[in-house]
Amino acid sequence: MTWQFEHVTLGQRVRFGTGTAADDLAAEVARLGARRVLVISAEAVAAEVTAKIDVAALCTDVAPHVPVENAERARALAVESGADLLVSVGGGSTTGLAKAIALTTGLPIVAVPTTYAGSEATNVWGLTEAARKTTGSDDRVLPVTVVYDTTLTASLPRDLAIASGCNALAHCVDSMWAPRTDPINQALALEGMRALSRGLRTPGDREQMLYGAYLAAVAFASAGSGLHHKICHVLGGAYNLPHAETHTAVLPHVLAFNGPAVPEAAARIEEALGGGLIDLYDEVGASHVLRGVPDVREAARLVLPSVPPSNPREVTEDDLISLLTAAQNPSGAS
Amino acid sequence: MTWQFEHVTLGQRVRFGTGTAADDLAAEVARLGARRVLVISAEAVAAEVTAKIDVAALCTDVAPHVPVENAERARALAVESGADLLVSVGGGSTTGLAKAIALTTGLPIVAVPTTYAGSEATNVWGLTEAARKTTGSDDRVLPVTVVYDTTLTASLPRDLAIASGCNALAHCVDSMWAPRTDPINQALALEGMRALSRGLRTPGDREQMLYGAYLAAVAFASAGSGLHHKICHVLGGAYNLPHAETHTAVLPHVLAFNGPAVPEAAARIEEALGGGLIDLYDEVGASHVLRGVPDVREAARLVLPSVPPSNPREVTEDDLISLLTAAQNPSGAS
Repeated sequence: MTWQFEHVTLGQRVRFGTGTAADDLAAEVARLGARRVLVISAEAVAAEVTAKIDVAALCTDVAPHVPVENAERARALAVESGADLLVSVGGGSTTGLAKAIALTTGLPIVAVPTTYAGSEATNVWGLTEAARKTTGSDDRVLPVTVVYDTTLTASLPRDLAIASGCNALAHCVDSMWAPRTDPINQALALEGMRALSRGLRTPGDREQMLYGAYLAAVAFASAGSGLHHKICHVLGGAYNLPHAETHTAVLPHVLAFNGPAVPEAAARIEEALGGGLIDLYDEVGASHVLRGVPDVREAARLVLPSVPPSNPREVTEDDLISLLTAAQNPSGAS
Repeated sequence: MTWQFEHVTLGQRVRFGTGTAADDLAAEVARLGARRVLVISAEAVAAEVTAKIDVAALCTDVAPHVPVENAERARALAVESGADLLVSVGGGSTTGLAKAIALTTGLPIVAVPTTYAGSEATNVWGLTEAARKTTGSDDRVLPVTVVYDTTLTASLPRDLAIASGCNALAHCVDSMWAPRTDPINQALALEGMRALSRGLRTPGDREQMLYGAYLAAVAFASAGSGLHHKICHVLGGAYNLPHAETHTAVLPHVLAFNGPAVPEAAARIEEALGGGLIDLYDEVGASHVLRGVPDVREAARLVLPSVPPSNPREVTEDDLISLLTAAQNPSGAS
């Protein structure tokens, strides 16, 4: 085996702590010399997080998968308010809306995540128009700084925390065979899996969860979207599915499908997870039934054109039908 | 334990392969749109590496520790030649000279390493004037791209390859207690140690060596100079010592000194190395006698002001005398 790869590391600052978000955010606003901050958040905790900075405007117009209309309203608000910095406080949809603003305005983002979505550590943006999700990557949408505060994920209900953590796991697992997979992003993905599986097994260990979610996103941004993410993006846009739950449900079936084609990666994944993925799900009580897909044949047809040509094994429409059917009926499949 | 840290990831592109340097370099020159390339190299292999690009000027004025006079001559050449890109082909001294040019001119660097020095993945520069080495960090000196080609380290004599690899190990080990050590750069450092110890134990596995050396440098750039690097920088500048050999000789004694103060880190280091550091040295035949320090008392006095206040245990002048004496007589000390 000879390694040949091109790896791009994205430059970014991370501030990590517990109960430190307001101070860290104030320090970043000062460091960046921002004077007109547009806060993007639909969460009550935003008031506390932004208590030590001046807020020029607040955008609460957050919706899943970033509908184009929401993005356009938020961009208009950024212009009207004369914003020179975007601060997002929330999960993936919130960070995604900030990215949609940055994409056209070039404004810098400081992201304050409240879930394990990981969008804060990638240059990937997404927009949904007419039930179709478009994604792309652009370095302008990469937050310059991420402020991680473990207290901000404390209020996530246990099942949402698990789903969000499993969504982060999906970033790691899919990185092992994604189009730009390489030894560097694989090492980050495996370290992310170790942290996330530790965190999932120890409810309340939010340091491991946030740390793992960050590494997961860094690996994913580098490796690109593999089969798993292509499936979930198409389904999420087409049927407006809940993001984290859909990823949780689909992942074991992509792993079961691709694993045999990359046995070394599959073995490293199992070692990093401390066992099988379904076993980990069962141990931590992660529900993993794919819901909201009315017609798996239609879904398979929609997904097929997005399958990465570099996937370690060929994927047919029938494969996708079987995979999605198994995800809808996991007890029968595993 | 609560984690509180600020981690800066430097944005950089890596191209990695075997026998691919000339093509990768040509691709990078094209990608960057450079028209006047100043090549910095004192190595014969530079002709082969640069065979597919136009070279506006060649600087061969490379010397250890980057003497200020050499830097000034090279900067003048960059201006005279109208260079818009610096391409370094060589080890740490060569990359260091390119950085010295970039520091004052802002010219981008594409680095093509021929050793495991790791300078190519850091924003740290160094200059030596009147036997005193000054170092600093500036993002302008971080190469935009690193072109790794495992064939370029094939001609390193075995003892130099080992010393250079042990120097890379020092970046990893010192990162575990350096001033800005954090879970992220520790994970990178440990992965670097795993790769380097595998590579050192398998002569000819230059993929693991280069991969490990890269991770080592990334971890080091993030964590900063710990006790080990402060000692070696001061000694290297004061006595014009060979860089890699000095790091190899000093490292076990810094590890023996600091290890007991950070038992968890010490255990993770030992696990990543697959045993003790001296055992690894003995196994791979790394010579590790500190040479060229005429007076350890004077050396200790010179080093003391540079000891990081954050070092996990206090360091006295007597401690440094003992440490350096042990490094000069390793068989008696270990």
